[in-house]
Amino acid sequence: MSSVADKASQAKNASFLLAALPRDVKDRALAAVAQALRSRRSEIEAANAADMRRAEEAGVAAPLVKRLTFSGSKVEQSAVGVQSVAALEDPTGRTLAARELDAGLELYQVTVPLGVVGMVFESRPDALVQISSLCLKSGNAVLLKGGAEAAETNRVLFEIIVDATGDAGIPDGWIALLESREDVRAMLALSGSIDLIIPRGSNEFVRFIMDNTSIPVLGHADGVCHVYVDRSADLQQAVAIAADSKTQYVAVCNAAETLLVHADVAQAFLPQLSAAMPQVILRGCERTRAIVPRAQSAAESDWSAEYLDLVLAVRVVDSFDAAVAHINRYGSHHTDAIVTAQRQDAQRFMAVVDSANVMWNCSTRFSDGFRYGLGAEVGISTAKIHSRGPVGLEGLVIYQWRLFGSGQVVADYTGPHARGFSHRPLR
Amino acid sequence: MSSVADKASQAKNASFLLAALPRDVKDRALAAVAQALRSRRSEIEAANAADMRRAEEAGVAAPLVKRLTFSGSKVEQSAVGVQSVAALEDPTGRTLAARELDAGLELYQVTVPLGVVGMVFESRPDALVQISSLCLKSGNAVLLKGGAEAAETNRVLFEIIVDATGDAGIPDGWIALLESREDVRAMLALSGSIDLIIPRGSNEFVRFIMDNTSIPVLGHADGVCHVYVDRSADLQQAVAIAADSKTQYVAVCNAAETLLVHADVAQAFLPQLSAAMPQVILRGCERTRAIVPRAQSAAESDWSAEYLDLVLAVRVVDSFDAAVAHINRYGSHHTDAIVTAQRQDAQRFMAVVDSANVMWNCSTRFSDGFRYGLGAEVGISTAKIHSRGPVGLEGLVIYQWRLFGSGQVVADYTGPHARGFSHRPLR
Repeated sequence: MSSVADKASQAKNASFLLAALPRDVKDRALAAVAQALRSRRSEIEAANAADMRRAEEAGVAAPLVKRLTFSGSKVEQSAVGVQSVAALEDPTGRTLAARELDAGLELYQVTVPLGVVGMVFESRPDALVQISSLCLKSGNAVLLKGGAEAAETNRVLFEIIVDATGDAGIPDGWIALLESREDVRAMLALSGSIDLIIPRGSNEFVRFIMDNTSIPVLGHADGVCHVYVDRSADLQQAVAIAADSKTQYVAVCNAAETLLVHADVAQAFLPQLSAAMPQVILRGCERTRAIVPRAQSAAESDWSAEYLDLVLAVRVVDSFDAAVAHINRYGSHHTDAIVTAQRQDAQRFMAVVDSANVMWNCSTRFSDGFRYGLGAEVGISTAKIHSRGPVGLEGLVIYQWRLFGSGQVVADYTGPHARGFSHRPLR
Repeated sequence: MSSVADKASQAKNASFLLAALPRDVKDRALAAVAQALRSRRSEIEAANAADMRRAEEAGVAAPLVKRLTFSGSKVEQSAVGVQSVAALEDPTGRTLAARELDAGLELYQVTVPLGVVGMVFESRPDALVQISSLCLKSGNAVLLKGGAEAAETNRVLFEIIVDATGDAGIPDGWIALLESREDVRAMLALSGSIDLIIPRGSNEFVRFIMDNTSIPVLGHADGVCHVYVDRSADLQQAVAIAADSKTQYVAVCNAAETLLVHADVAQAFLPQLSAAMPQVILRGCERTRAIVPRAQSAAESDWSAEYLDLVLAVRVVDSFDAAVAHINRYGSHHTDAIVTAQRQDAQRFMAVVDSANVMWNCSTRFSDGFRYGLGAEVGISTAKIHSRGPVGLEGLVIYQWRLFGSGQVVADYTGPHARGFSHRPLR
């Protein structure tokens, strides 16, 4: 078995060839993967049953065992997902800018794949299929490391993808499976051959990856999202938005964890909020507790807590600026909403809140690649370079500058008799 | 004196306000900086004279002392440079995409500043002025660390910028000066408050920065650029392009360091090449030396050497694919050129060579922000995310998703009676 460095080096070599593949070759390979998932479903199900049996024997909690399940309609959904990736526009080969520098000297800025993506995910074997498909569509090679609990399922899925894409003319070595934590550690050091790491899993897991590599990471560790109810807010609307942001689905990164309310409307608003979400535990500041006695006392740590549960931190603030300062200090720069009747206050909020997604008079739960209409979601990033917020296929490409000349040399554009550049837009 | 973490935290707080400043405030501040550089020129010159005296006393080599010089026309050029930055378009506030998700629910993807930039540079005090100007124009706060040899000059320039921008309404703390290597080390760990690091200096220096931080780095360590002469090349054109790429200015990252030539034309081409650059030391493979006896014997290390001098590695290759494999293996992914009469071979070369800049029938020396017409050059990046190749002001911005609603909640778009999304382009 080859080392991680060998696999990464093979993936890098494959990536050079992948970058030049036309769309139809990649799409036919994706169709073959979808077909193979269906025709080899029984193999997948047998491996998955073994993984689940092992998890049960190891005493893994039932909800986690359930997340491992990959059979029947889940396999079919996965195959449909691969087909829908094939139907997307190819994100590579797009001309972002075209400029004549001089007669017969034309510059094009063209999208190209990143190269090699390292994907590390916990449980949920469908992630393996989804990310491999997105990488192939965008011409990237990929190293994958799934959760140990899904090892057998992942191995079969990996083999299916290798077989189907190999037969379809995708270069050998474009995809590789890593199987141990040591492999992941080794991968984090391979900045020469891996261009991007995408981790999916718990906060601690993502944070560990981010802190232990100089390779760029696309992801988010925390989702500490806020709803701020300003003094001009329509309070009924504010209650609905806060309730949806908190309770519509609590276990996700774009659910609200903290509610801030302007002191001028706290007395009117907080009792309505409390009544609208009786199932939610409130952790309030002293002023909140004076208005809503059922609220527990919030500690400093509550302001940066990601509960992912029916718990909401609540704080009364004296001003718009205090709300913004709280969000920028304690938030995770993911998604933050303001409820206000004043459009210009919302615009100010958006300008000074340093978050990937900022919302006016709507739920934080809208920050999502599907809802945004991105076509496919590679992940959600709170980094501030390359891609931010929900990331579609454009997160897996970069550009290359291509200069088409006819013998030009720089010496002719230098010195007292220098030719000038035209810098004329093309097309 | 406050710690680096304090300075970074103040810069972060200033960055929230900077992000919301209108263009005219930033441009007026830049005009004030240009004005102050002129009116306080004697202070700058006195500090610079002290730095130069100290360097001479320390026995610093004359060319390096010369690079330190910052007086007279250099100060005026720097002031003109600041004015030209003011004249550039504001890179923030541009709408990249606008989409209606549903009636009264509108999504905008808008460019915003990165936040806080950490700039580390060696000697050349004009870099301090230039990068501060570009950061201010793009709404970013900046921490600066210059070379110890220019400490007095840098301190005066920093004070001039602080005074001029403070009077012009730019938030306090938006710019800070670091003065020691320990400060730089401390900065590299502040991934929570610094969003991008731009190092300018020697290869070793940039490599050290890249390897010792999880903060994104915009820069390039090496420039090992190639000219490949394919078998269909116009050999006279190939000689001119190779000579310009190698000799037009040797001390820069986009100068060629290795020449590859197809075996079919090596016999005809190499003697012409040798005759055209008699001042250049050639380090050749055995086949090169059989044709050009004056060539020295190349070692393996020559294929990845960045000479930055009148030295050129030369290798005969058996095929187009061998040339590409050499470039992808030994190159630094900066700038590589092919000389060929076949446009489709050039296109294939561009698709499979994994470099920021790829050239057909023209000199590698064209890869430069000014020649590309980018307006301003922040740096040249060989990273494969965010910005690549010559980077203009767009390298200092990212985008934010702004969703304008009218009370929408996700619950209404979920389940059996879900409302659909329109995902209609706006404007």
